[in-house]
Formats: sequence, structure tokens, C-alpha cells
Amino acid sequence: MRIYDVIKNKRDGKVLSDEEIKFFVEGYTKGEIKDYQASALLMAIYFQGMNSKETATLTEYIAKSGDEVDLSSIKGIKVDKHSTGGVGDKTTLIVAPIVASCGVPVAKMSGRGLGHTGGTVDKMESIPNMRTTFTQEEFFKIVNDIGISVIGQSGNLAPADKKLYALRDVTATIDNISLISASIMSKKIAAGSDAIVLDIKTGSGAFMKNIDDAIKLAQEMVSIGHHIGRKVIGMITDMDIPLGFAIGNAIEVIESIHTLKGNGPKDLTEVSKVLATNMLYLAEKGSMEECAKMVDEAISSGRAFDKLVQMVKAQGGDINVIIDTDKFEKAKITHEVKATQSGYISHMDTEACGIASVMLGAGRETVDSDIDFSAGIILKAKVGDYVEKGQVIADLLTSSKDKLKESEDKFINSLSWSQHKPSPKPLIYAKVSIDGVKKY
Amino acid sequence: MRIYDVIKNKRDGKVLSDEEIKFFVEGYTKGEIKDYQASALLMAIYFQGMNSKETATLTEYIAKSGDEVDLSSIKGIKVDKHSTGGVGDKTTLIVAPIVASCGVPVAKMSGRGLGHTGGTVDKMESIPNMRTTFTQEEFFKIVNDIGISVIGQSGNLAPADKKLYALRDVTATIDNISLISASIMSKKIAAGSDAIVLDIKTGSGAFMKNIDDAIKLAQEMVSIGHHIGRKVIGMITDMDIPLGFAIGNAIEVIESIHTLKGNGPKDLTEVSKVLATNMLYLAEKGSMEECAKMVDEAISSGRAFDKLVQMVKAQGGDINVIIDTDKFEKAKITHEVKATQSGYISHMDTEACGIASVMLGAGRETVDSDIDFSAGIILKAKVGDYVEKGQVIADLLTSSKDKLKESEDKFINSLSWSQHKPSPKPLIYAKVSIDGVKKY
Repeated sequence: MRIYDVIKNKRDGKVLSDEEIKFFVEGYTKGEIKDYQASALLMAIYFQGMNSKETATLTEYIAKSGDEVDLSSIKGIKVDKHSTGGVGDKTTLIVAPIVASCGVPVAKMSGRGLGHTGGTVDKMESIPNMRTTFTQEEFFKIVNDIGISVIGQSGNLAPADKKLYALRDVTATIDNISLISASIMSKKIAAGSDAIVLDIKTGSGAFMKNIDDAIKLAQEMVSIGHHIGRKVIGMITDMDIPLGFAIGNAIEVIESIHTLKGNGPKDLTEVSKVLATNMLYLAEKGSMEECAKMVDEAISSGRAFDKLVQMVKAQGGDINVIIDTDKFEKAKITHEVKATQSGYISHMDTEACGIASVMLGAGRETVDSDIDFSAGIILKAKVGDYVEKGQVIADLLTSSKDKLKESEDKFINSLSWSQHKPSPKPLIYAKVSIDGVKKY
Repeated sequence: MRIYDVIKNKRDGKVLSDEEIKFFVEGYTKGEIKDYQASALLMAIYFQGMNSKETATLTEYIAKSGDEVDLSSIKGIKVDKHSTGGVGDKTTLIVAPIVASCGVPVAKMSGRGLGHTGGTVDKMESIPNMRTTFTQEEFFKIVNDIGISVIGQSGNLAPADKKLYALRDVTATIDNISLISASIMSKKIAAGSDAIVLDIKTGSGAFMKNIDDAIKLAQEMVSIGHHIGRKVIGMITDMDIPLGFAIGNAIEVIESIHTLKGNGPKDLTEVSKVLATNMLYLAEKGSMEECAKMVDEAISSGRAFDKLVQMVKAQGGDINVIIDTDKFEKAKITHEVKATQSGYISHMDTEACGIASVMLGAGRETVDSDIDFSAGIILKAKVGDYVEKGQVIADLLTSSKDKLKESEDKFINSLSWSQHKPSPKPLIYAKVSIDGVKKY
């Protein structure tokens, strides 16, 4: 087999065989197939697409390109959750303890912040002494002992994805639904769970800007799961407004704790409950209605919060900050952002809000940047709220004045105003499963 | 400017600006733009195409990527000729002396054999002591002295083309009319002539397999010339049958000499005359009718042949073999191929005939192979001829028996047979100029 022919076949609109896809992924991972041939093939895929079988096969071989986590030593149906990334999206910190407290083991690997979106691992590390790196044995032991562990991606998981993503990033071949799906799903497949709930964020703060594209992406990933033998549900949720009021790290952990205790923001609570319910459903804990009740009960009983405390303790973290969130280290500077006009906030450019938070130190501007865990934005008003000119609409938290003005400008410019109350938008747009698309 | 944006713009179907094309060609030539980005852009061009302005700009910057020959010290309108490559195509050896003998200076750089097609430089080197490498000063001096010199490509002509072609060759991005046109024309532009007659071969022995594609290619190249300010005519000629009877090197020189003396094969004579007439026309020597008469007269008077003798002498070659072609070194082995059946030869796979000749030693199987100048094929029958079973249809000439059987099989398998005389096909299909397409 020659890679030339694989490129030519895809260029000419042919369906690639399993052998051709295997040859490409294995050869490229080993470096036997060159970057310039891989990028030509990726561009041909961009134009000609891949069918669902090809996409699943591509995903499978990318997943097989490195370590594959074997979770079989952990009893029960393991359900993973994956968010395509958003601003203020701290649902993992809420959903994982809820699900674990309902008896579904959570052995989850999470990511770090990327661009304007935050990452669970960074958020967890705002808890003093919290470890996110473990050997596989330690990781499994924690899950078997307390039913939950959330750690950073470890080992050599889907190295082909890392290599392909880096190449796509510099050759304008990111925006293809098959390639995006294969990239996301390959890591989830390699991470070993039996079932996956995908939270596909949509709107100004998300990678997917419109609902139809998000649904297509969800369908592709559900189809991959179907071909590979993993149950997958895709929830299309709103990211046209930051989720909750906190954007940062420590402040997002604090908001998660409030939510686990039943005192969280309405939007964050609703999205977290829906995701947790679907995870329990995939873990075959009952009907959707029964699972929803279990979630409510996990929160109201305090069991979900207790599970978080157990996890923090097991991973070496300081549980004092969890029990009394006032003990989290505070940002040195709190700067109040005041409304520049009176009226309703009619829209927030959520990506810009995320970038404003990164400027304050809450995220990485380059790969090597350190994160200021106490930095971030506390929103005091969101889309749909009426505010008077001069009213405080957000607190900017940071330890350095360097980019404070720049961040404030970015934030203020992210807002659109109206004299009329904007009509509220749904939080959950659609559910995509092997049974089809259900729109809300 | 970032190459990423250039790739993305072309991917999205935008027209690239002059600056973007310049940025790409210059950056890629210097190695600042990587192969993997160039191949992604080439594949995007494959799918989205380039308009005639973009194609001309690409050609111009590829031509400018290295040395550009300045022919201004040679008086008169310099007219070049380029063939897209064929089997038995020795027209340069006939056309160049005809044109030079009519007072149009020929300062031509020719190529070597590639794959199944021969090259003028290899053919010339079958003449003992014939030089094909000169300094620019020597080259110009010969042209100024005798009005003609044909040499190998020298200097650093269009290095971007060499680099791009090598990349296209391994990434399935050869087959794009803009890229093919830019590749051919950039070298012709850099070679410095004022006008160019293109001989676009069509059929089983040519790169272009059908007439419509050949016409499109011709139109693209005529358009490039128009944008860049060079007069270009494209002749679409037949390469579904080898041209003439000789396929090789020394034997093609001999056939060229016969043709220059007025005793050549009918097809070769006709194609050569048409090309020469168009070259004289572009050199503004008169109307098409007047130019055709000048060509006839150059042959019948012996002036064209004399010009060849002058050129061989000026380039150090042994004119004795030109004057008495029996003095060319003969192949050690002459093997007669006999017809396997009685009937009309209805078709010849001309590429296969070319490969059979390469197997005998007449071409290079790898870049480093030596050529056996006396090797090749003398056809004794061609498409349309009736032969009896056992009749000799070709002589295979070689100095080694190693691949004789393989070559004979290849040749025999290239033939199709019929009990009915096939209807003759035209030699010249169309003429493409800035005035439009004229079909014959």
C-alpha cells in the first residue's frame, strides 16, 4: 500500500477502506508517513468528507495509537462526560460527584484550559495540595475505594490525535466534522469508559457557533460510538452566555460547591442535573424520570457534596476550603466594572468574556504561563437583566494591574444593550442519541 | 501575512491576491513555508482551482524564483517551442533548424527523457562529442554566430517549480490544470523567449489523454502568456500513435535528418511543418500561408539541414554522422518482432511502446541510469496497416538481452487488432491562440 494512493482515492471521492485508514494512522504515528502527505490527505478529507464508517474507523485507530485505559477492574458501567468547552463551564465538578454518589463509578480524565475555555484540571488545582496526577494503580484504587477520581490526562493517550491536531492547526484543516469527531472521540474511547455523555456547547462562547452544526457533530459522535460499541448521548447546551456567574478557577470551584449544596445558579444547576441524569441513564440506573429523581435526591441529601469532599481528600486536597469556601485564597485586587449605560443586557460575546478572564490571569496566554487560581470574573448581571448606568455588573479579580484595563475593555465591549427585555433562550437545545434527535 | 490564512482563503474558495501568491512562492522556495503547508495549499488549489489571473501570477513568481535568462543581446523575436512529451517525438531537432534557417534566432533549452517520453538533450547526446552544456556567454555566442543553439537546461531555472513538482508528485496534486500550466510556463518564461509555440500531445502516449483536456490546458497557457506579455500558440497534436517510425535516441536523430532532407515519415513531417510555420508566424515573418511556404522552401533548398550541420559543429558534435547517418554506432542486437496474428493494427498503447523502448535501454528507469544511445524501436507497421501473421512489425535494438523478452511482450501487448481498416485520425486536432480555439 502507498500513501499516495490513499490520498488520491480520497481526493477522487472514494470511500477509504479500513486497511487504508489503519495504514495512514499507524504510518503517520510512526513518522513513516510524512507531514506533507498527511496534510494533503487531511485537506482531501476536508473537501470530500468521510462517511460514518470511515469516521468510526479513523477514531478507532487514533484511539489505538497509544495507551488504552482498561477500566475492567472497576466494577459497574463506567460513564464518562465530555464538554466541547465553554466559559464558566464547571459542570464536571458538579456532575461527577452526583453520579458517583448514586453508585456509578467515575474514573475520569479531564483536560486543562485551552484558549478562552477553562479546564477542569486547572480548576481542581486551585484547591491547595490537590493532586491531579496519579499512576494508573493509584487512580484505580481511589475509584474502587470511594467511587470517584478525576485526574489529568496521563500516559500516552491517542498520540496520533495530538500529532494530527497540531498538523490540522497549521494547515487550515480543523473545520471538518469527521476530523473533529474523531479527535474528541478517540481520546474518550482510549480513556476506557463504557458510555459517554457529550455536552456540546453552542453559541458565542463555544467552538460550535450554531445549533445545526452542533447537532451534526453530536450525530457524528453518537454514530462513532455506535460503530465502536460505546453508548453515546450528545446534549446540545447553550454557551451563548457564560454558565453560572463565576469565570475562573477557585471561584468556579466555590460555585460548584454551592451548586452541589443546592444553592447554585439556576442555569448551572439545570445543565448539571440534565447531564447527570443522562449519565445515570446510560449507566442503566433506571428510566430518565427515575434518574432525574436520583440526581435531585443526591443533592438534597448532601451525598453529592460529601462525595466531592471524599474525592478532594483522596487526591490530597485541603478539604477545609471545600467545607468553608471563604478559606480559598482571595485575589489581591477586586475591580468593579460599572455599566456604561442603562438598559437590558441583550447579548454577551462569551468568547470575549473568556478572554477577559484569561487576561486577568485565570488562563494561559501561552502554553507555559502560570495560572493565577484566584483570578477571574464574578458576573453580577447577565443577559436579560436590567441595570442602571453606573451599577456594578461584574467584579474582576486579579493579582496584577498589568492587564486589568485591557480586560475591563474586553469585557465591556462583549456586552450588547437593548431597551427591551430580550426573550429568554433555552439552556438545553437538543438531545442526540442513537434513537435520533430530540429538540427542546 | 500568514501562510495559514492563504491556505484557508483558498480552501474557502477565495481568489488569492498577488501578495498572497508571492508570499507563498517566495516563502516556500526559501524553506520558510513548510512542505506540509504547501501540500495543504496545493490540495486546496486542486479542489477550488485558480482563475487565469491567479495562475499567471503563480507562473510569474515561480519563473522569478531563480535565474531568468535575458535573451535581449540576441537580435530579433526569439520563439521557443515546447512539447508536453510524447513517444517518438523528435520535432525539436527538425523544427529548430527550419526556423533558424528562416532567420529566426533559436536559443532553446531542452529537457531530458522522463518516464516513457524521450528528451531532446538525450537524443542530441547520441551524436558523438556533441555538447549540450554551455555557459550563458558561449550559448549566446553560438546563437549570435549561426542563429541556433539547443542546450540542456542550465543554471537555477525556476527552482520553485522543481520543489513544487516534487511535492505534488507525492501528494496526488499533479492533476490540476492551473498547476500543470504554471509548471510548464514558468520554465519557458524564465528561459527568456518572446513567444512560445506549445505542442500539446494528446492520446495514449501523452500526459493528456483526451482532446478537451488538452484544449483546456492550451487555453490556460495561452492565457498565462497573455497576462505576462508573451505570445503563445498551443497546437493540439496526436500522440495516440508514436510519431514517425523511430523510438530511441540515435535512430530518432537519423529520422530527423531524413525529415529535414524531405524524406521523413508523413506524420512527423506534417507535425514539424505545422509547428515551424507557427513559430515563424509568431516571429512575424509573414502570414500563415507565407510562413508555410518558407518552411517548405527551407527543407527543399537544403538550408534547414545545413543549419543542423552548423549547430552540431558549433556544439562540438561529429558532423560525419549527420552527413552519413550509417556512421552512427549500431546496436549490438537487432531483434525482429513478428505479428502474432493477421489483421489491421487498430490501436497502439503508445505509452507502453515508450516503456518498451526504455526497457531496451533507450531511456532511464531510474534517475541515475545510463542511456544506450543506439537502443530503441524501429516500427515497421503502425495503426491502419494490414500485416500478415509472422510479418516483421518492428525491430527492437539493444545492447543487452536482459530485458529483451520483457520489452517484446510489452510492445506486443500494446497492439490492438481488427479485421477492418480503422478510420484514420487527424494529426493536428486544434490550434489555440488568444483569438480562440480553431478545431481541425
